[in-house]
Amino acid sequence: MRLAELSERSGVSTATIKYYLREGLLAPGRQVNTTTAEYDEEHLRRLRLVRAMIQVGRLPVATVKQVLGHVDDESLGRTVRLGAALWALPQIPEPDADDEFVRAAQRETGELLDALEWSNAKLLTTISPSYRSLVVAVAAVRRLGYDWDFELLLSYARLMHRAAALDLDFVETRPSEAEKVETAVLGAILVQPMLQAMHRLAQEEESARRYGFE
Amino acid sequence: MRLAELSERSGVSTATIKYYLREGLLAPGRQVNTTTAEYDEEHLRRLRLVRAMIQVGRLPVATVKQVLGHVDDESLGRTVRLGAALWALPQIPEPDADDEFVRAAQRETGELLDALEWSNAKLLTTISPSYRSLVVAVAAVRRLGYDWDFELLLSYARLMHRAAALDLDFVETRPSEAEKVETAVLGAILVQPMLQAMHRLAQEEESARRYGFE
Repeated sequence: MRLAELSERSGVSTATIKYYLREGLLAPGRQVNTTTAEYDEEHLRRLRLVRAMIQVGRLPVATVKQVLGHVDDESLGRTVRLGAALWALPQIPEPDADDEFVRAAQRETGELLDALEWSNAKLLTTISPSYRSLVVAVAAVRRLGYDWDFELLLSYARLMHRAAALDLDFVETRPSEAEKVETAVLGAILVQPMLQAMHRLAQEEESARRYGFE
Repeated sequence: MRLAELSERSGVSTATIKYYLREGLLAPGRQVNTTTAEYDEEHLRRLRLVRAMIQVGRLPVATVKQVLGHVDDESLGRTVRLGAALWALPQIPEPDADDEFVRAAQRETGELLDALEWSNAKLLTTISPSYRSLVVAVAAVRRLGYDWDFELLLSYARLMHRAAALDLDFVETRPSEAEKVETAVLGAILVQPMLQAMHRLAQEEESARRYGFE
């Protein structure tokens, strides 16, 4: 397809597409003559991914480039490729290891991973930003003095494990390895706001069921 | 307890507590003489809530005041009181009703609520910010051209319904009505980052289980 059709089908203006091409976020089309290039379905797919990261995820162009670098790195195995792409997304800063609540949260999170039998996640604790985020979230709860019990945390984690299995089941339906990795990145950007909205709406539904509206 | 102990037990500096008192985010203590006031467990609890909203939720003081106004409004039934407090939290702007993807997402979200039999949530579609957020999230997926199937959305929503039931089960363990509402507000601020971190870590665990690390 020509640039005009790519723009039409993606809903991205030709000026923006040209900008993405200049920035290297989109591979050049196949040049058919000096003024015209031809684009294919892969360009369309990549354009949607770039747009999701920039418009929905509000990521800076430099981060998008970094994520795409991992998405395109065929030398990596799937877990590492997924991990590298997702870990290039903006993450929280390193928690302060001198803070007593952070240290307690590290212990509690470790116990949580043991109880869940997430032995792979346990291997990643020194490098995974997701683990760090969880430690920070648990530390925030404890620092504020809330006594959420361990069983509750376990129940939440088991639900999120089921969500993760749904994510990966869907990723596996994608035909190529490149699309699988792309879909995982998109999931990280698009699924989270959807789950959060569903969660809040479910709270309203459940609250009305239990207590009525008055 | 005196101000110094309140500060010690909450981890909030006396200067900040005085600021919260001036701003009306914390009720005055019981004056025991002209220079000394006495605070109780309720002050400590409220202080933790204010701190969660300001430090973790990064809410402006004006919003915190608004949320607390609803938390303290004993004239409201529980569902409305919860709803009013949670809806005072920062929300996304109204989606553009002229946009074709928004209109399609409204239809799809309506079908989703029907299939889930969330009849209470359905009654709230004109006023609930959570419903609006869900429409915006679904519109974003569709606008980007992703063909996530309806069954997948249903499965995610059912998981989040189970999370919401856990939330409310925990809220119900709190002794007073005031603490129940406070706990619901805290949940909205503290649970979400924890679920997100658990979700990502679960993806890493599940990815490593399915594909190994190489």
